[in-house]
Amino acid sequence: MEKPTADVTLYLVTDSTGFLEEDFLARVEKACRGGITLLQLREKERSGREYFRLALKVKEIANRYHIPLLIDDRVDIAFAAGADGVHVGQSDLPVKEARRLLGPHKIIGATAKTVPQALEAQEQGADYLGVGAIFPTTTKVVTILTPVETLNQICRAVSIPVAAIGGLNAQNLSILQNSPISGVSVVSAIIKQEDPEKAARELKKAVLSLPERRHMP
Amino acid sequence: MEKPTADVTLYLVTDSTGFLEEDFLARVEKACRGGITLLQLREKERSGREYFRLALKVKEIANRYHIPLLIDDRVDIAFAAGADGVHVGQSDLPVKEARRLLGPHKIIGATAKTVPQALEAQEQGADYLGVGAIFPTTTKVVTILTPVETLNQICRAVSIPVAAIGGLNAQNLSILQNSPISGVSVVSAIIKQEDPEKAARELKKAVLSLPERRHMP
Repeated sequence: MEKPTADVTLYLVTDSTGFLEEDFLARVEKACRGGITLLQLREKERSGREYFRLALKVKEIANRYHIPLLIDDRVDIAFAAGADGVHVGQSDLPVKEARRLLGPHKIIGATAKTVPQALEAQEQGADYLGVGAIFPTTTKVVTILTPVETLNQICRAVSIPVAAIGGLNAQNLSILQNSPISGVSVVSAIIKQEDPEKAARELKKAVLSLPERRHMP
Repeated sequence: MEKPTADVTLYLVTDSTGFLEEDFLARVEKACRGGITLLQLREKERSGREYFRLALKVKEIANRYHIPLLIDDRVDIAFAAGADGVHVGQSDLPVKEARRLLGPHKIIGATAKTVPQALEAQEQGADYLGVGAIFPTTTKVVTILTPVETLNQICRAVSIPVAAIGGLNAQNLSILQNSPISGVSVVSAIIKQEDPEKAARELKKAVLSLPERRHMP
């Protein structure tokens, strides 16, 4: 059993809030066709059973496109739904515990806002980091933005891939011109667009054009 | 590794809402001294990390009194905190999934409101059932009460222990006079009393006096 690759080049985090389920699943599929490289299901408002049920459906889509699926926060639902791993934030289970539960063959991503947090997550076994928020976002309450300079310091401090997160889109991506990130993680810039497939394709092009981008792993 | 016994005679479900942590933990300890036989940590409002952190502290207390600790809903936190199992409601992970994740040596309890739900939970591997709410309760939104007659039917339909839940206390327990339950599960009647140890002791006496009580397992 080999661990799937955490390619964060174009990393879609989902938010089904406000969509009918059918529409939401169609949008996820379009994003897959548009070239996303990693997918995270994040459902903060759903019950465990609903989260699990939706995870099974999203996993089916992700499988068809060979895109690894991660579950936000809940290691148990990741296991139950046969997902490829989890993403844990600073208020979720510690990376160390998630790694202990999931074993070495699953992907674990972590959110970091500072160099010490980034180093700790890497040390505890994270496979990649989500760092931000670079810009304010409508999908999460952001109390403090992460300066690009901090993002860059984190990229240089760790040896695992770093995805920039928070309010990024094809228009404002130039702010990461000089950042040695490996990719970007978005919600709205893909899932909430009229044509998620086109949005993903354009954003991916923009990410791949970033001159300092580090291709990892 | 032997499975701990799910003795539901006096089953305390905790609710730390409104208590300072130190006070809350002291109350849990007093309840242990008062003779509770099973303990469930239920924290619907906390983040995963906070839930985990509190579970570790409660587990320490439960260990001292040799009382099994169950975690509400989150199988991952149960694992991470070294708890003895989980309790799952109708909106949590299905019993079947919880059993698949936890293996045969952990306790799994389930909530049931009807005979079909009770039979399904038993079939999927539940070790005991919580059935109710018998009375309205302040610690959960109850949309429908479970008649004592239904509770009794469930007790007769399954071979696993049944705990009656919902607004029960030493004063109104006589309603279960003719019920073949194995015990009662309470929150407020112990944890919110001025003296949780005394409250537990008195309630246990009342439970043990129920003439039709089934001693199980």
